[in-house]
Amino acid sequence: MKSFLEKLLISSRKNNSLLCVGLDPDFQRMPEFIIRGENPLFKFGKEIVDSTSDLVCAYKLNLAFYEAAGSAGFTALKELIDYIPYEIPVILDAKRGDIANTAKMYARTSYEVFGADATTLNPYMGFDSASPFLEYKGKCAFILCLSSNPGAMDFQYLKSDKLYFYQHIAYKTVEWNQEGNCGLIVGATHPHQIKNLRKIAPELPFLVPGVGTQGGNLKAAVSFGTNSKGELLIISVSRSIIYASKKKDFAYATRDAARKLQDKINYFRKRC
Amino acid sequence: MKSFLEKLLISSRKNNSLLCVGLDPDFQRMPEFIIRGENPLFKFGKEIVDSTSDLVCAYKLNLAFYEAAGSAGFTALKELIDYIPYEIPVILDAKRGDIANTAKMYARTSYEVFGADATTLNPYMGFDSASPFLEYKGKCAFILCLSSNPGAMDFQYLKSDKLYFYQHIAYKTVEWNQEGNCGLIVGATHPHQIKNLRKIAPELPFLVPGVGTQGGNLKAAVSFGTNSKGELLIISVSRSIIYASKKKDFAYATRDAARKLQDKINYFRKRC
Repeated sequence: MKSFLEKLLISSRKNNSLLCVGLDPDFQRMPEFIIRGENPLFKFGKEIVDSTSDLVCAYKLNLAFYEAAGSAGFTALKELIDYIPYEIPVILDAKRGDIANTAKMYARTSYEVFGADATTLNPYMGFDSASPFLEYKGKCAFILCLSSNPGAMDFQYLKSDKLYFYQHIAYKTVEWNQEGNCGLIVGATHPHQIKNLRKIAPELPFLVPGVGTQGGNLKAAVSFGTNSKGELLIISVSRSIIYASKKKDFAYATRDAARKLQDKINYFRKRC
Repeated sequence: MKSFLEKLLISSRKNNSLLCVGLDPDFQRMPEFIIRGENPLFKFGKEIVDSTSDLVCAYKLNLAFYEAAGSAGFTALKELIDYIPYEIPVILDAKRGDIANTAKMYARTSYEVFGADATTLNPYMGFDSASPFLEYKGKCAFILCLSSNPGAMDFQYLKSDKLYFYQHIAYKTVEWNQEGNCGLIVGATHPHQIKNLRKIAPELPFLVPGVGTQGGNLKAAVSFGTNSKGELLIISVSRSIIYASKKKDFAYATRDAARKLQDKINYFRKRC
């Protein structure tokens, strides 16, 4: 079995892509013909995977949007993870964080029930909330460091001992990375901070949301977020790709939006 | 429809109890005769609810333990919430925290899919990650402030502008409490901090885990955690109650453990 990092490098090199398509299936925004058909949550994801799997380095599946559909959503999420080609790593976005015996169950759900390759974690509860995930050596725990939303300003920039809170998290994550299975989440809405985080964690994979609907800086994310080899950066985009059209052409429109973004990322990448 | 706070005061007064039984159903610790029967996750919860519903002020259901059983667990969780007597408030423990459009889906799941009365939230992503929950005015968002586990020391005690990080969270929660639907989570493993948090938030409900297996200080939690009327404190205990026995007598053993703890809490409460 390949590890998350191996899969990421393989798919990223094969598809020449740092783009991760995020699946946030919202019934209010999905095409009518899919909503009216059978198993719409799976079908929507399948169409997107079929039309973009040669353009991406990873998929990020947002638990919230599946869970809201009840147990049918749960089943569709699992079915979709099984459907995604084995070589493309799947990040389950659930922002987990709880005491160790609870975290152990969440880790089991991510990796044994769903079979994801990586999970997003909220580190506020400290090491023992992350460690049950880190015991899965071939997986990856993406630690929430600096988020892309406006609320990032509420707590993440509090300063303590000359470091911002998000920097304390980055340093701890480097400590926690004993098995090489940690990553950091850094919003593209904080371009300069991506630069300083890359210095703190030169070889950790960075999951970077916020370049689409949230208006983050793509050029800076690519220039500052890649490692010294121009890799280990995952630009995650959901809404501006998967809702490119509500009509029958939606799969093609999605592909087109993904292809344009993949190309734009590579344009900036060459100029790093 | 009664709000969370109304239900809490009614059940707490009627049952003369500040005890919340936490349901963390772990197949490795549940009685054999239940595991071998039909729908064990529901059945285990039902037995506990039947044997303790006159002794508690609330139930806390831990999403992790239901989710790990896949879509069957999801169904059992919903069934169990429906089964719990209407007057007893149900807290869904899921430590949610994500950008607004995702948080909106999580809030919908908690309150419209599951029909819980309250949810636990991780505030690291700031106001817009909590606001979709706060829009449900009759519900309650318990904001993770100071956790009961060892990892609480990693980040929660970082000091910024003369306040600890957890205190910044408490002050923000008081700001967020415009509709009277916020609460704080404070581990019983930090007795003195409960005292200072009660000063910051005199009228917020406190959800206090950590007095059972985690070894927190019950006396201090009761003395410092109650408001001026000796109320608005929810002492949440899971493992040391629900795993009181693995044998046929488990429902009675659970009742006995809950009754002893309810009584001990009230003993300390009278001496506040």
